[in-house]
Amino acid sequence: MPVFLDTTETGFDAAFEALLTAKREDSPDVDETVAGIIADVRARGDAALIELTAKFDRLALSQQTLAVSRAEVDAEIAKVSAEDRAALELAAQRIRAYHVRQMPEDAKWTDPEGAMLGWRWTPVSAAGLYVPGGLASYPSSVLMNAIPAKVAGVGRLAITVPTPDGVMNPLVLLAARIAGVDEIYRVGGAQAIAALAYGTETIAPVDKITGPGNAFVAAAKRRVFGKVGIDMIAGPSEILVIAEGDNDPDWVALDLLSQAEHDESAQSILITPDAAFGRAVAEAVEKRLPDLERGQIAGASWRDFGAVIVTRDLDEAAALSNRVAPEHLELCVADPEALSEKITHAGAIFLGQWTPEAIGDYVGGPNHVLPTARSARFSSGLSVMDFLKRTTLAKMTPESLRAIGPAAATLATSESLEAHGLSVLARLDKLNR
Amino acid sequence: MPVFLDTTETGFDAAFEALLTAKREDSPDVDETVAGIIADVRARGDAALIELTAKFDRLALSQQTLAVSRAEVDAEIAKVSAEDRAALELAAQRIRAYHVRQMPEDAKWTDPEGAMLGWRWTPVSAAGLYVPGGLASYPSSVLMNAIPAKVAGVGRLAITVPTPDGVMNPLVLLAARIAGVDEIYRVGGAQAIAALAYGTETIAPVDKITGPGNAFVAAAKRRVFGKVGIDMIAGPSEILVIAEGDNDPDWVALDLLSQAEHDESAQSILITPDAAFGRAVAEAVEKRLPDLERGQIAGASWRDFGAVIVTRDLDEAAALSNRVAPEHLELCVADPEALSEKITHAGAIFLGQWTPEAIGDYVGGPNHVLPTARSARFSSGLSVMDFLKRTTLAKMTPESLRAIGPAAATLATSESLEAHGLSVLARLDKLNR
Repeated sequence: MPVFLDTTETGFDAAFEALLTAKREDSPDVDETVAGIIADVRARGDAALIELTAKFDRLALSQQTLAVSRAEVDAEIAKVSAEDRAALELAAQRIRAYHVRQMPEDAKWTDPEGAMLGWRWTPVSAAGLYVPGGLASYPSSVLMNAIPAKVAGVGRLAITVPTPDGVMNPLVLLAARIAGVDEIYRVGGAQAIAALAYGTETIAPVDKITGPGNAFVAAAKRRVFGKVGIDMIAGPSEILVIAEGDNDPDWVALDLLSQAEHDESAQSILITPDAAFGRAVAEAVEKRLPDLERGQIAGASWRDFGAVIVTRDLDEAAALSNRVAPEHLELCVADPEALSEKITHAGAIFLGQWTPEAIGDYVGGPNHVLPTARSARFSSGLSVMDFLKRTTLAKMTPESLRAIGPAAATLATSESLEAHGLSVLARLDKLNR
Repeated sequence: MPVFLDTTETGFDAAFEALLTAKREDSPDVDETVAGIIADVRARGDAALIELTAKFDRLALSQQTLAVSRAEVDAEIAKVSAEDRAALELAAQRIRAYHVRQMPEDAKWTDPEGAMLGWRWTPVSAAGLYVPGGLASYPSSVLMNAIPAKVAGVGRLAITVPTPDGVMNPLVLLAARIAGVDEIYRVGGAQAIAALAYGTETIAPVDKITGPGNAFVAAAKRRVFGKVGIDMIAGPSEILVIAEGDNDPDWVALDLLSQAEHDESAQSILITPDAAFGRAVAEAVEKRLPDLERGQIAGASWRDFGAVIVTRDLDEAAALSNRVAPEHLELCVADPEALSEKITHAGAIFLGQWTPEAIGDYVGGPNHVLPTARSARFSSGLSVMDFLKRTTLAKMTPESLRAIGPAAATLATSESLEAHGLSVLARLDKLNR
């Protein structure tokens, strides 16, 4: 059974704080191993990749087979059913349509002093996307990472995906094809991250690496950060549902279970002003669990990290949700727009009872790569912005330099940076001559 | 003397590559020390801050004097000259005007299937700004970090600044006052970062930490990343000037020196299609060096990391600049706008001979916190976006769920995430009943 809390009971604050700070994930310390793998790939390039792939993925590769060929991709994606293909294409089209709207605009203006100011956005030249192998090899994640990159205008987009025992996932390859991925390499783990960051004979280095991965991949991303850009380091998934009592308990139970089934460390929280509804949802969860394919995982997550919290009203529910800063927030209430205005921290909001969070995982349009572990307090989900960077622009005229240059020289002097000041004063001298 | 390269000479590529990859900074490994300091502050709070401040800053504090009082700030800023105050206020006003334009817009639309989609931007609730002590305690950096935070709408903005031997910098305090900083604490080093991230009895924790610092501060920021957001880890400053032969060599020399004087690890590069001009600038640098207050630092930087590169034409200059991805790029050419269109990677561009980079450090308006060490390939300077985060929005109607829900269920099945699919199908069942 998950924890049941009531905001009117004494001890609530301490219990809620415990829920907020519960450590849900054991991060094994693999940093030393990862440092060794990165050094090896930097030193020996493809040879290291081939050796490590033989060791970890039981797969014999050569320089000729590191990349998945176009013909191989063609052969694999031919295996995908028409229904799966249509679903992927619908998802891709909707994700693209959403992300196109995120493209920021350049700006340029002249200020009252006559200075031209502005900025310009340009795409990252090359990006690498890590795709996990095995069970967590999700075609939807390929779309969610690759489409924003391509919308941003990234010229070269490479995927690395481990293929243990040589087994490829046709849906992942189809998603890559649909999203316009340029290169696919069958390597994984820290060695794939090292290859993307530093390059090998076969894999040219990229400027930005995104995508989820296990502890080794996460540690490798942390290590190469600075040499290349990385996206966030994702933690276990979370959902928080704020629901009034007139919802179908089974729907809300399934929404909670759709996070819980990801991972035993996932967290599902229901906040409701209706205690009886809270109990009904918990019962509905128990009723669904025995028949779920991933019931064991979902059950462990719900038992260890699940929570039902009864509040005085929706305002209190919103305030508690803001303290959680959940990755996914469902508002199953009569006026979700009004309640959403009270939400200050959340990765994604799903408004109303007809918007199960799973829609956002696949076909809604917004990105499903979202800030976990309360990081929605300070960060955002993946977007085209992750594949763009801003260059600021400034152009002085002699007149604008005359107007604002002296202040710059004054501040340079106050900071004991003489040459800074002289670079301005030399020009002002000329103007005043 | 700096290195002189000519793109037409054999061996240029190797020499340029060596310039790109030269390690300019020794990063001492202080990680273990920093880990200990953070653990100490987490365990003992204010007591640890007080003890560490006595040790490192030779300053005896109590819980009552950790914060700089309003009266103290008043007394210190009264010492600032009218000229310095006016210069700071002009800078603040121009930085604010620039950053206000960066505020992104919320979006909301209904798509052809009837789904409402969009996003909302919200500010980080609380931010902390680290300000170095001693020589590198720059009031301009306070403005550049604090103003974007306040423009973004950050509710609570705290500064930590070490005051070795109790000495405060009145200009830093005035900059904080002008920028609207809410709290100032006289602590520095890794202990200040730990206090901002985890909180103590006196210092409430923040959600985002920005600002420059030494190796201890940088290591501490890396360690608390995830618990809070951080800005980039800045390396030594860089400037690249592309100049045609009709510029004043002394102006360009001063622009190169204004980076070189920051730090012996700073880097100044001139790229010009005019070899004679390149030599003239190098001579002008030598002529200026003996009289500069920071001539020893600037001389070392220019000697060890400076470069003059002669190219066939401006196109080649732009291409080389893009490989450098400089923090600051000056275009001292007849048509800087046209050349700027060829620039794909740069933190900030200064267009034309009347725009010395130092203008951008103080009063131009754009931010002076910019990506160093070639990270302009994948990242941007500080902006209001660093203090905002995006929440995506989605609302399905029964009709839109009927239209796109089946595809979501199909994909959920293909990813073996049964509850995801059921959460959609349960709703579709109701619609079809």
